[in-house]
Amino acid sequence: MEEVKRVRLDPAMRRAQLISLGVKMLADRPLEQISVEEIADQAGVSRGLLFHYFASKHDFHVEIVRENSHEMLKKTAPRELRDGDVSADSLIDVLRGVIASYVDYVSQNRSTYVSLLRGTASGDPDMRAVFEETRTVMADRVLIYLPGIGVERTPQLELAVRGWIAFVEEATISWLRDPVISREDLVDMNVRALPSLALASSPEQASNLLGLVN
Amino acid sequence: MEEVKRVRLDPAMRRAQLISLGVKMLADRPLEQISVEEIADQAGVSRGLLFHYFASKHDFHVEIVRENSHEMLKKTAPRELRDGDVSADSLIDVLRGVIASYVDYVSQNRSTYVSLLRGTASGDPDMRAVFEETRTVMADRVLIYLPGIGVERTPQLELAVRGWIAFVEEATISWLRDPVISREDLVDMNVRALPSLALASSPEQASNLLGLVN
Repeated sequence: MEEVKRVRLDPAMRRAQLISLGVKMLADRPLEQISVEEIADQAGVSRGLLFHYFASKHDFHVEIVRENSHEMLKKTAPRELRDGDVSADSLIDVLRGVIASYVDYVSQNRSTYVSLLRGTASGDPDMRAVFEETRTVMADRVLIYLPGIGVERTPQLELAVRGWIAFVEEATISWLRDPVISREDLVDMNVRALPSLALASSPEQASNLLGLVN
Repeated sequence: MEEVKRVRLDPAMRRAQLISLGVKMLADRPLEQISVEEIADQAGVSRGLLFHYFASKHDFHVEIVRENSHEMLKKTAPRELRDGDVSADSLIDVLRGVIASYVDYVSQNRSTYVSLLRGTASGDPDMRAVFEETRTVMADRVLIYLPGIGVERTPQLELAVRGWIAFVEEATISWLRDPVISREDLVDMNVRALPSLALASSPEQASNLLGLVN
């Protein structure tokens, strides 16, 4: 066996390193097959030390999934709007950037993404909490801009935006299985779906939403 | 212990009875806790006989989930259109009936429905196949009517309809957790979302779809 060099890291760095090794391993195998022993070996620490940072294997797995979700959110982060440019056109433009990077992210990380979202992980309450948090961040990315174009953030609209995220996920995963349309058409459809759904959920806000639809 | 009366049933009836006992049990506990022994006891048959009908406990569980999905589909079946009445109005009317019964079904079977859809079951490929079949039936209920109103069934539109089903599921489950709007508003939003999404996915078919939107 190869000798592993033991490097002294401060606790926060060590914890981050262990999680990051887990995220890397997640690209090649399902979560259930991520073994604490292998990760500890790779980091050059003892199994015991790993459990100093994480209460259990389950907790370690949850942190891996959380970090993995953060990376997805980072890779799909909306570009900054130039100050004062909160027009319907620029919002749709930002949205298109987010959706295009989401479609690319899911394409590149297909097995991990699909197995986490629909796999055994989703049966666990802590994992579900991570997925819910992630969806909430994705929904908020949209919702924060609405007041800027005169659209009121109502409970109904929030529900529609959550539903839209499920629409995008489902359409993208179905498309990966069977890419019946081009990537551009998929991105277009996912983008246009949002203002259409917002309008369907809040017809009384039509005058302000219509600018987004066309 | 109570003596269980053993009744002779023909094989198809016996199989159906075992599945139906499983579906009944599923209302009270998660799938993982449905024990073959208890079901065999309730049916008054031996554990061995149960395995004459199902290759394994896993197969038995899959058949329970399949039957449960069939019941959901039956309870949300669209009413028949009167002959020749394939107008936009009557389609939206049929759709409203389907969505209203779906929302009521999910409300009444909340824990079973949510735990199956998002629970450990969804990590299993055979279970996923049952969920996919169910979604396909739900999508086809919509898609078969489109040619009748002059809307062409394109791959893009099929993707949008699948996405719409995910939208309805997510909005309904979020609403159950936190019913921020009335049941009627939820049904309305779910119904209106379909033509809006169809339109967003197929703007070139706008002239025929617009009748559904208003």
